[in-house]
Amino acid sequence: MVATVCLDNLPRTITLEYTGESRVVLSFVDQRELPYSLTFTKTDDWHVVVEAIKTLAVRGAPALGIAGAAAVVLWVDNFAAEQDVKLEGVVKDEFEEAFAEACCVISEARPTAVNLRWAVDKVSRAARLFLAEEMRVSELAKKLFDVVKCMEQEDEAINRALGAQGAPLLKPGARVLTHCNAGSLATVFYGTALGVVYAAAEQGKISHVYADETRPVGQGARLTVWELSQAQVPCTLICDNMAASLMAQGEIDAVIVGADRIAANGDTANKIGTYGVAVLAHHHHIPFYVAAPCSTIDFSTATGANIPIEERASSEVLPRALPGVQVWNPAFDVTPAGLIDAIITEKGVFAPACLQQALR
Amino acid sequence: MVATVCLDNLPRTITLEYTGESRVVLSFVDQRELPYSLTFTKTDDWHVVVEAIKTLAVRGAPALGIAGAAAVVLWVDNFAAEQDVKLEGVVKDEFEEAFAEACCVISEARPTAVNLRWAVDKVSRAARLFLAEEMRVSELAKKLFDVVKCMEQEDEAINRALGAQGAPLLKPGARVLTHCNAGSLATVFYGTALGVVYAAAEQGKISHVYADETRPVGQGARLTVWELSQAQVPCTLICDNMAASLMAQGEIDAVIVGADRIAANGDTANKIGTYGVAVLAHHHHIPFYVAAPCSTIDFSTATGANIPIEERASSEVLPRALPGVQVWNPAFDVTPAGLIDAIITEKGVFAPACLQQALR
Repeated sequence: MVATVCLDNLPRTITLEYTGESRVVLSFVDQRELPYSLTFTKTDDWHVVVEAIKTLAVRGAPALGIAGAAAVVLWVDNFAAEQDVKLEGVVKDEFEEAFAEACCVISEARPTAVNLRWAVDKVSRAARLFLAEEMRVSELAKKLFDVVKCMEQEDEAINRALGAQGAPLLKPGARVLTHCNAGSLATVFYGTALGVVYAAAEQGKISHVYADETRPVGQGARLTVWELSQAQVPCTLICDNMAASLMAQGEIDAVIVGADRIAANGDTANKIGTYGVAVLAHHHHIPFYVAAPCSTIDFSTATGANIPIEERASSEVLPRALPGVQVWNPAFDVTPAGLIDAIITEKGVFAPACLQQALR
Repeated sequence: MVATVCLDNLPRTITLEYTGESRVVLSFVDQRELPYSLTFTKTDDWHVVVEAIKTLAVRGAPALGIAGAAAVVLWVDNFAAEQDVKLEGVVKDEFEEAFAEACCVISEARPTAVNLRWAVDKVSRAARLFLAEEMRVSELAKKLFDVVKCMEQEDEAINRALGAQGAPLLKPGARVLTHCNAGSLATVFYGTALGVVYAAAEQGKISHVYADETRPVGQGARLTVWELSQAQVPCTLICDNMAASLMAQGEIDAVIVGADRIAANGDTANKIGTYGVAVLAHHHHIPFYVAAPCSTIDFSTATGANIPIEERASSEVLPRALPGVQVWNPAFDVTPAGLIDAIITEKGVFAPACLQQALR
């Protein structure tokens, strides 16, 4: 049986809007509430967005980028609400200093996904250009709103292009394993790894998707299977430690995962457990693909060894501490380029070793 | 830093006793209550033991064997309480038929661990021998009690012997990874995989033990780290999907796991996830050891392909069902002999390929 696919029931994960009172508001799916409740948080407070990023209410590298960029706009808009001054002279200097500090706080809300830094930098660069002209803070907010709104729309277009690039890698009847959630929920809409699945499903090629539950936060169990079921793609949830058995039984034709940061040499940081899946795929001669927009490639990071790996609270793994028991809880791991068959981007499908030559 | 070890705070997992009223009572640690509460269940009802086996209140291949054997004694003792007849003629035939049926129910409470069948068969064979002489049911109960009490004591002796056999495989300062719980809690006392750790720790060789949490039931998170902390062995809990990263960082010197059934060719069924860990160990050139008593070796099963793998309820993985989402929940997987560096038994350490020659 082959999946049909229907994306009508998938929400847009992140939407930046102007309200009636000319205030910017960010609306996002609170991913901590899924799969049993689809809840949207609306906020005009940049602190709330930073907190949402830290607490994983918003997560997924591309979504983090857009949320971070939106937080910058909210910061400027919040500033305008307090004092909508004209940005010139000392006032402008002071504003720029505070703006740079806020960008820094937002960029550093989480360390591993480079898209967050990339997107904040992009908005920040736009702001510097706009500020060459004198304008009121509210005018700057409006201009930056347009920039981020454009990034938001571009995100979906990039994902659809990426999906179209990746779909030909899958054979008809493909059974795909994925880890974590690199789906529509990890982006504004459509997804990266699941974008490839949706594009292939639109071509009638997908027979089944297996989702690793992805401990400790459960992005597979709570998000991936939820969005696949919304999209009417047949799916099975497994514990992370069951993937090897599925592979040994010949049930997996391809593995597709997302990425939080791809180093210049193709080494890829992604959700903890990805590296293990890549080793298992290699052992079972199953192709292993990384799907990510070009904004996830960080040519300033030479290899995976240079990617900072976030460690999170032990309570995610062990809710109640046990005396004498330590917990290790890295949020990401690094898959060496040698274990990755191809990196699927909106600009094409590349061998990890060829990224620099092709895209830099 | 090297661990000292102290087993004084570890409970005996299973104890068969005669009470004041000359009734047999089985006492066991209810492992569903750990790590936050150490609770003992006492019962004289064989049904309760079968239920405890099915619901994982008692688990671990060697412990399942002793619990199953004890259930047989309780059945005979329960029979004696109802009608303490003399076993002769038709009465004996009827008794034997009912006895065989009960043994069958107990043996089949869980399908994968061969120790359960092995132990029930052992008690059953003893019963047949005893029944060559005419005796009352209560007398048979007493005789079988002695048999099982002997098996119970033998279990600890076997584990200590197995530990002594395995300890020389570890180098001073060893950092060991284990999966699931093959510890004292999986046996009457001392443990198999953790028996090797305890024996090595007594020799001052263990610097750290890493425990996979072992989804979905969490035997690592709930049992292994609890007993290691009780035994004062430094330990760190990780999610199953973090083991690969630890290995890549050079933090693991050896992997030691238990077994639920070892086929004649050395293929080994153990808790789901074991196979994946074995593949990862192989990839990282880390020795992978299976520690199990000889009663876990099933020479009547030629290869791992012939071992029945129990599938358990989807609710263990996903507590609340999601429409359109399937769950796959095998309780065990099979690690091919080729990925196992050695099988540690009470009779020696063997290459998997040499089991038949050495032990049959």
